[in-house]
Amino acid sequence: VSEPSSEGPSRAAVIGTGLMGGSIGLALRAAGWWVTGIDSDPTRVEAARALGAVDAVGEPSGPVDVTFVATPVGAIPAAVRYALDFSRWVTDVGSVKAPLVAEIADPRFVGGHPMAGSEQEGVEGASATLFTGATWVLTPVESTDPDAYATVRSSVSSLGADVIAVSPDAHDELVAVVSHVPHLAAATLMALASEGADEHRALLRLAAGGFRDMTRIAAGNPAIWPDICAANRTAIGAVLDRLLDALTTTRDLVAAGDRDGLLDTLERARAARRSLPVAGPATGELAVVRVPVPDRPGVLADVTTLATDLGVNIVDLEIAHSSEGPAGVLILVVEESATERFTGGLLARGYRPSVTSLR
Amino acid sequence: VSEPSSEGPSRAAVIGTGLMGGSIGLALRAAGWWVTGIDSDPTRVEAARALGAVDAVGEPSGPVDVTFVATPVGAIPAAVRYALDFSRWVTDVGSVKAPLVAEIADPRFVGGHPMAGSEQEGVEGASATLFTGATWVLTPVESTDPDAYATVRSSVSSLGADVIAVSPDAHDELVAVVSHVPHLAAATLMALASEGADEHRALLRLAAGGFRDMTRIAAGNPAIWPDICAANRTAIGAVLDRLLDALTTTRDLVAAGDRDGLLDTLERARAARRSLPVAGPATGELAVVRVPVPDRPGVLADVTTLATDLGVNIVDLEIAHSSEGPAGVLILVVEESATERFTGGLLARGYRPSVTSLR
Repeated sequence: VSEPSSEGPSRAAVIGTGLMGGSIGLALRAAGWWVTGIDSDPTRVEAARALGAVDAVGEPSGPVDVTFVATPVGAIPAAVRYALDFSRWVTDVGSVKAPLVAEIADPRFVGGHPMAGSEQEGVEGASATLFTGATWVLTPVESTDPDAYATVRSSVSSLGADVIAVSPDAHDELVAVVSHVPHLAAATLMALASEGADEHRALLRLAAGGFRDMTRIAAGNPAIWPDICAANRTAIGAVLDRLLDALTTTRDLVAAGDRDGLLDTLERARAARRSLPVAGPATGELAVVRVPVPDRPGVLADVTTLATDLGVNIVDLEIAHSSEGPAGVLILVVEESATERFTGGLLARGYRPSVTSLR
Repeated sequence: VSEPSSEGPSRAAVIGTGLMGGSIGLALRAAGWWVTGIDSDPTRVEAARALGAVDAVGEPSGPVDVTFVATPVGAIPAAVRYALDFSRWVTDVGSVKAPLVAEIADPRFVGGHPMAGSEQEGVEGASATLFTGATWVLTPVESTDPDAYATVRSSVSSLGADVIAVSPDAHDELVAVVSHVPHLAAATLMALASEGADEHRALLRLAAGGFRDMTRIAAGNPAIWPDICAANRTAIGAVLDRLLDALTTTRDLVAAGDRDGLLDTLERARAARRSLPVAGPATGELAVVRVPVPDRPGVLADVTTLATDLGVNIVDLEIAHSSEGPAGVLILVVEESATERFTGGLLARGYRPSVTSLR
């Protein structure tokens, strides 16, 4: 694969040097970046330096190209604003995107969320390979500077992650479904099972592997959840309501002895579980899709989230600028098998893409 | 450890020769038993013989000591009645106990439920070590013949399982909590996540390890669940109602932005998950508790379920008969560290236990 973005930037900052920030630092340095680390806790940032996750500590003396904000969710807005003072582009790794993206509303900020690890664990667990093969969501919006997106995207790709673009609202609803509500449900089930445990404690030995699998996430650090629940309150509330409705239906099927209804529900769930898509790098032949983009806002977000909606894996992305302003050509590397689907969607939206095979 | 029950019986039958029945056959034969296999499907029982899980096929010519019924839940009552014609003692491995034990109501039948594997998977997956270290519940009741319990218990122990005695009702409520309702909740969550998957299918790549762990059980065979839900309808309904109440409370905490309430709930769940007891063999020094038992029904169920309630692990159990009738002495091998707790509970119920250390 040719690497259109190979002449990338080389100076980064990481704010918040726990497990995630430390891993970003290690992976950036392994990819040749110079990295400075910033943390409200001097001990933690020194630990990150001792582990080789950062080259320097504290606010950089000159401008940096990209800053990764990896603080707890509640501290992200202030850290992003601070970073915008000295960093050309800024991104973050928080679990909730819509309120943050709306609050920051700066074209130089791109919201992000790697689906790996957790915000507040210790830097001791940091690893340069934490993101290898992981899915890393970016949430460009209409006001996002295309160059901000292209640079952040290329930086994240260089960490080994598969990048997909999703709108902030779609991201927040989906993580409510696949992360936040499952966590709350697991915790609720675990609390239910432990009720009356004084008399029947020994009975919990009956809990077999399925229950242990299901409640494992309830053993995680609770401290991060009040912030996440506050930030993603709307989506979590809506998904919990849907779960309550669906569980009530299941309860009614059991009470009515409706065997066919139960079997149908469980068959659908099995089919869905078995076809759960697996994150992973592109495996097929690649092609380049060139999309001339007009001088209007939102084109970048429109094209990249369209790719995600169509299940088109963008392997690489570059922007060829015209001599003036944001118009130019988006150059996207995608799997060749997906080009027809992708160009169909692009044409339907008024774009004029052209395709070149890389075989 | 001395083995009070070493002169055990030697002829067994297994009805239903799938994964569970096949594993029981393999483990019994490895422990020196002669085993005949009975199955409505001639192909399956021949496969079990070919795998070495049974010595013979079909109804035994002479009486057998213990029959294990390992059919799907709906077929158990008829199989137990059939087995009582040619077998001295009968037990089963079904997931629901109270309705079955009430329906059979025979002193020679002891309900059972090994917490390992599933009723309907293929004999090809059978293993002689499936039960090694697994918890195997037996549900003696007032009318259970103490010798039926002692023999079934010793047979199950010889398969490598840790036996605990639980009342049928307590068993059914607990498996609703740790197995049936978690399964239904996982399936419901999975169905929820797959809604609208046509447009947002690629987004399910965001589902990280926690969600995959939580929904893994939803990938299991749905066909066994309508029977289980029908048999355990009351307990499942009650536990689903408790789950709905608890999830509604969680939803209200999120909606109200109640950080302290959420943190408290999640902290309790984490503490419960981290202290989930692990099934396993006795590790401490052992002691023998001898309990003279009066000539009245229910003593065996009373003593053994008391041990379970107190968290006392019964490592071995034997009955020393008096010259007439059911009165005699229960000889229980337990961990020495638990003897004080156990004898305290026994004294409180009017028994007169004595303790001998095995050190």
